[in-house]
Amino acid sequence: MPPAPLITEDPSLKPPVITLTTDFGTTDTYVAQMRGVIAGITPGARVIDGTHELPAQQILAGAVALDSMVDAFSDGTIHVVVVDPGVGSGRAAVAVRTSRFTLVGPDNGVFTLTLDRTPPTAIIRLTDEAYHRVPVSPTFHGRDIFAPVAAHLARGVAIESLGEPATTLVNLNIPQPSETNDAMTAVVLLADRFGNLITNLTRDRYDAWLARAGAKSVTVSLKKQAVGRVREAFADVEPGEPVAYFGSSGRLELAVCNGSAKETFGEKVSVTLCATRT
Amino acid sequence: MPPAPLITEDPSLKPPVITLTTDFGTTDTYVAQMRGVIAGITPGARVIDGTHELPAQQILAGAVALDSMVDAFSDGTIHVVVVDPGVGSGRAAVAVRTSRFTLVGPDNGVFTLTLDRTPPTAIIRLTDEAYHRVPVSPTFHGRDIFAPVAAHLARGVAIESLGEPATTLVNLNIPQPSETNDAMTAVVLLADRFGNLITNLTRDRYDAWLARAGAKSVTVSLKKQAVGRVREAFADVEPGEPVAYFGSSGRLELAVCNGSAKETFGEKVSVTLCATRT
Amino acid sequence: MPPAPLITEDPSLKPPVITLTTDFGTTDTYVAQMRGVIAGITPGARVIDGTHELPAQQILAGAVALDSMVDAFSDGTIHVVVVDPGVGSGRAAVAVRTSRFTLVGPDNGVFTLTLDRTPPTAIIRLTDEAYHRVPVSPTFHGRDIFAPVAAHLARGVAIESLGEPATTLVNLNIPQPSETNDAMTAVVLLADRFGNLITNLTRDRYDAWLARAGAKSVTVSLKKQAVGRVREAFADVEPGEPVAYFGSSGRLELAVCNGSAKETFGEKVSVTLCATRT
Repeated sequence: MPPAPLITEDPSLKPPVITLTTDFGTTDTYVAQMRGVIAGITPGARVIDGTHELPAQQILAGAVALDSMVDAFSDGTIHVVVVDPGVGSGRAAVAVRTSRFTLVGPDNGVFTLTLDRTPPTAIIRLTDEAYHRVPVSPTFHGRDIFAPVAAHLARGVAIESLGEPATTLVNLNIPQPSETNDAMTAVVLLADRFGNLITNLTRDRYDAWLARAGAKSVTVSLKKQAVGRVREAFADVEPGEPVAYFGSSGRLELAVCNGSAKETFGEKVSVTLCATRT
Repeated sequence: MPPAPLITEDPSLKPPVITLTTDFGTTDTYVAQMRGVIAGITPGARVIDGTHELPAQQILAGAVALDSMVDAFSDGTIHVVVVDPGVGSGRAAVAVRTSRFTLVGPDNGVFTLTLDRTPPTAIIRLTDEAYHRVPVSPTFHGRDIFAPVAAHLARGVAIESLGEPATTLVNLNIPQPSETNDAMTAVVLLADRFGNLITNLTRDRYDAWLARAGAKSVTVSLKKQAVGRVREAFADVEPGEPVAYFGSSGRLELAVCNGSAKETFGEKVSVTLCATRT
Repeated sequence: MPPAPLITEDPSLKPPVITLTTDFGTTDTYVAQMRGVIAGITPGARVIDGTHELPAQQILAGAVALDSMVDAFSDGTIHVVVVDPGVGSGRAAVAVRTSRFTLVGPDNGVFTLTLDRTPPTAIIRLTDEAYHRVPVSPTFHGRDIFAPVAAHLARGVAIESLGEPATTLVNLNIPQPSETNDAMTAVVLLADRFGNLITNLTRDRYDAWLARAGAKSVTVSLKKQAVGRVREAFADVEPGEPVAYFGSSGRLELAVCNGSAKETFGEKVSVTLCATRT
């Protein structure tokens, strides 16, 4: 066979990246349909799955997933998140621009954690039907509104064209760590697939508290069980032992070495950090 | 192998799209191997997963999955479906051209629902081994026949080059809704991951019956339980209540708001719609 | 970071392919983060998932998965494997060049089976931090070392630039089939999702033994149950019957037609092949 002329795009271009994060699972073809719609509008876009295994309709899980991954993507990425218990009801559909990325999804608080760190520079309600698929299924805005809007953004449509500007978003009430000079209490937001418990304490917040507290060392405890100091990695302890460390999510995580912290401690727990100054 | 005619439009603008739908799962590397073969033949092709979680060897599930997604893809897409209990036996391998897309897979009925809506314009048995991987594993035609054939189609090879023309395909016997002037009875084809029950009643068929029946309203019942009228979305009822609506698949679906219709009603049920004219 | 030497051939002709095989699952965003990092460094790279459902921290499963898929990919592919129980401890991170592909991952034996067939031509320890993400998370080398290194290789960085050369790798102790003139004994390495048992006996090894033994026919037995001869496909026997065949992995596999060999026989079994010369 003679080598055929090959099919590719201009490598000097930087194809726009769109991520998709949903609770749709991959058993059905819902995600495929979103990708089909995007490919039809912006064939050159790179589509990357965040995860589609969010627990059904758990907005907090979507918020944590999005926040865990945005820093791994280049500026200009378009992140679509569809955890949407209100689909077909009156909740708004929005696109949110920040200095680093654009978010697309339902206005139900799923962007809260991410926008706490990178505030919005524009909020647009997706009211211009010219950028939607026709007809819009009342049960599948992921395919008919969010996917085409992301694809149009990826081909350069200005966010302002997509609908009406807004000034506020629904805010998810996410518990914050509480602190005194001597102690900080964090709570577990969710468990990952390995059973590691991911808390609401970010490294930035921890570092600021350490500085304020003038702490020389910190000890961690969970359900009154001592976990020891904050480690660099879960390989730092013996198999079966609990360990606290700042995970790849940028948050304090609790694990059991070669085991499951979720199974050992449950998921609804708080974590106490005590500072000592001696 | 003769040099193939290649696509004439600037391919960098619109890379060909290939979808893969199988029962291979993603635990093993079967899907990766299919993608590797495609990337080796047509590096510029965009490959999109339909789903790989079809129940093992259930041809009907493959037929419904394919039919649920084809409308979300642009004309020219190549859809590969591999649910293939007969691999290694004498069943034919085929490519089927329609006015909108090309289908590639085993001739076992998996294309039936899709071709009922978009009839074939050419059927080719994949007998030309020049377009297969060498050697062909008797247990993995997905990698060795269907993936390379799709890749060659994506780089512009004419479907007629792939083998011998045929005039018929194996047809899957899929139950049709039954109707009188006053009532229509649909049956559940399968449940999706959320436990929503997807029936054999399409919106087109329903609209035609409504017009013929001169119905002013319709009430739905399932296992003698009243479900109410056909709604726009499952958010239209209270949590725990059953609801009937035309889903994103274009078919009548039964759900339980914030619950699972499959768990509540089972999967082997029929649905009755009664027309009233007053 | 100093400007890296870039590939000289026109990269638009053949976008580099990177595969990712891990035990990260797809419930969390770990894989997405790896893809985000790669897209940021080498936007034109094609990233293909091997599998992310390796059993957690099972190096042997990673070794078998990689070996099952490398032959389906073109020369020049970069394969990343992250099954990494030692992350955060002192195990080395490596890139390994062969005549056909480049491997990237932890030096823990996960490449053993693949390199047994295609020996290394260069081994480099990934010590040059200029090619890592900053800062490197002690718990997520997949994102911070292996993904960026693969992306840099894909854009043409020479493997020698990535760190210090090494001469040996950790070797995984994988049992070999034992043979006499009359019989060969293989053991099951793992079961796939269908419950098929994949053994340590490759087709090449089998063919060589057949020739040496001068065998006219071979009968297979498993746990003292006769399985019959080696078949071409599992469709060659009746439903419920066991069958032995060389699978798409290139290894002898045991299946139960329309059933699960794993459920029928368990996973920790040996398989005996007896040659007869009459």
